Amino acid sequence: MALDDLTTPALIVDSAALDRNLATMLGAWPDRTLRPHVKAHKTTGIARRQAALGHTGFTCATIREIEVMAAAGLGSDLLLANEVVDMRRLGRVVDSGARVTVAIDSEATLAAAVAGGVGEVLIDVNVGTPRCGCSPESAGRLADRARAAGLAVRGVMGYEGHVMFVDAERERKDQTDQAMGLLARAHADVGGEIRSGGGTGTWQTNREVTELQAGSYALMDTEYRKLENVPFEQAATVLATVISIGDGWAVADAGLKSFGMDHGNPGLPGMLVWYCSDEHVVFSAGDGSTLPAVGDRVRLEPAHIDPTCALHERMFVVDGDTVIDEWPVDMRGW
Amino acid sequence: MALDDLTTPALIVDSAALDRNLATMLGAWPDRTLRPHVKAHKTTGIARRQAALGHTGFTCATIREIEVMAAAGLGSDLLLANEVVDMRRLGRVVDSGARVTVAIDSEATLAAAVAGGVGEVLIDVNVGTPRCGCSPESAGRLADRARAAGLAVRGVMGYEGHVMFVDAERERKDQTDQAMGLLARAHADVGGEIRSGGGTGTWQTNREVTELQAGSYALMDTEYRKLENVPFEQAATVLATVISIGDGWAVADAGLKSFGMDHGNPGLPGMLVWYCSDEHVVFSAGDGSTLPAVGDRVRLEPAHIDPTCALHERMFVVDGDTVIDEWPVDMRGW
Repeated sequence: MALDDLTTPALIVDSAALDRNLATMLGAWPDRTLRPHVKAHKTTGIARRQAALGHTGFTCATIREIEVMAAAGLGSDLLLANEVVDMRRLGRVVDSGARVTVAIDSEATLAAAVAGGVGEVLIDVNVGTPRCGCSPESAGRLADRARAAGLAVRGVMGYEGHVMFVDAERERKDQTDQAMGLLARAHADVGGEIRSGGGTGTWQTNREVTELQAGSYALMDTEYRKLENVPFEQAATVLATVISIGDGWAVADAGLKSFGMDHGNPGLPGMLVWYCSDEHVVFSAGDGSTLPAVGDRVRLEPAHIDPTCALHERMFVVDGDTVIDEWPVDMRGW
Repeated sequence: MALDDLTTPALIVDSAALDRNLATMLGAWPDRTLRPHVKAHKTTGIARRQAALGHTGFTCATIREIEVMAAAGLGSDLLLANEVVDMRRLGRVVDSGARVTVAIDSEATLAAAVAGGVGEVLIDVNVGTPRCGCSPESAGRLADRARAAGLAVRGVMGYEGHVMFVDAERERKDQTDQAMGLLARAHADVGGEIRSGGGTGTWQTNREVTELQAGSYALMDTEYRKLENVPFEQAATVLATVISIGDGWAVADAGLKSFGMDHGNPGLPGMLVWYCSDEHVVFSAGDGSTLPAVGDRVRLEPAHIDPTCALHERMFVVDGDTVIDEWPVDMRGW
């Protein structure tokens, strides 16, 4: 099928660009030093390509992601890098033969792991992002209690989310080092082999983790592309059709239901995006560009890839203008 | 099932509040004077309640919405209030026995209606929102050409989107009148029985249309609730579980993949919402409130209901704390 035959809006993945992104990351983080985060794409079709390169351990954000990955045969080492209060569904995944490790940061989540039948945990440490994670000072004590309760503590994790979008690489490096210093302190108290953390934004500045939890590098978005030395390509775009031309603007049929909007409007090369409404994006021509005509196709660049993928039922994989595959976004929902 | 037994995050609809919202709107816009917009909820379960009150004509934003409504037996008078370049799928819906009217604003969309086999149209008029719609002066000419091409022109539509969130009702009324003046001018040239437009924000200020296209009134969101004299209740919330407590904040398990974010963070009564990440919302206690504990449930209020619904597979309908029904959000996707 040709790209032009697709109904719009449609989430498009450039197969070659995806492969180049995976290869670039593989060069820096080979084998099990990368634990790709599936929340960025929610698609086992992409996870299979990651696993084929040797990145066979995965990071997940939801129970659904764990379940679908395990059912797809990609469950050799799944980390739920998030706190969960009711782990019964996770225990059933363990019973099915997959390996599941879960983050805990409190007595309550420790108890949930025991009650749910998840035997392996990481101690989640707050390394400066005001979100989940126990304090670095309390991590060792929580690990002791976990082991006393019969859990295997594989190590620590700490996500330096507050560092991820610091533009200048030097400053990003300094802040990464501070955060990872906190994680190292906790790790010394906790023990275990794993020190997990990091993301696409700190893929070069964080060399302190034993495994990087990056996800966005595979498909990318305009927010990450702004950063210095984050060279991954835009592999995902949203194909839209121009449906109306106004007095100096054009309207295409992809809007708030096609794009995660927390990082702002999608990008459209050569054009100035004005705003999105539910099923519309409105834009004018940038300097030296001319507006398209009704019926023309445009390919918009998501500002935040993770919630963008969550809005689409499927991704169309293309080689140039030919659709070569179709992947369901099969880890959506909860 | 009890509310506490649901997996979180979960989109919750308060059945009684929904019914009160539908009744309030019915009082002002009885029978066919309301053409509820299904894009706000994307759920035939809600459309059935609207139809049962006599609101049997519906507004849609996508071909998928038209198809699903027709297949659900709700296709007696469906308006696709948006431009479409390829109408073949719509033609098949017409062939199936449903009544479909489509908006056109150009020669290209006129030709698409003819080619696709959609015999009834409205002329979409730009009434001040920079989006779709022909100019008021050109509407009559487009209608003439449509009739010459064999199409039935049922009238005009014009959406005063730029007026929808003007806070003060007096000012909203003035701007609505200006916009509807443009629509009336076009209508005089176009003819036909229908003058369609309006939304939840102009439910009282727009008395010029023959049918109001409101949708958000059924479930509501925090953005519409800010407006003067838009008295609909918050019928939809997202149930989340507190998974972690930090140093002065709490974290619950609903984030960017649970909420349309273009109007900002969701609300949480008594709490100050700091930010959302993919599967988290972080908040602190407001004055006089105390933070919940790990395992507690909270119910967040979407800032924009339309893209929020598009992120959820289903809605759980509750009577107090009892789940009495479950509705698939069956009009998602395209």
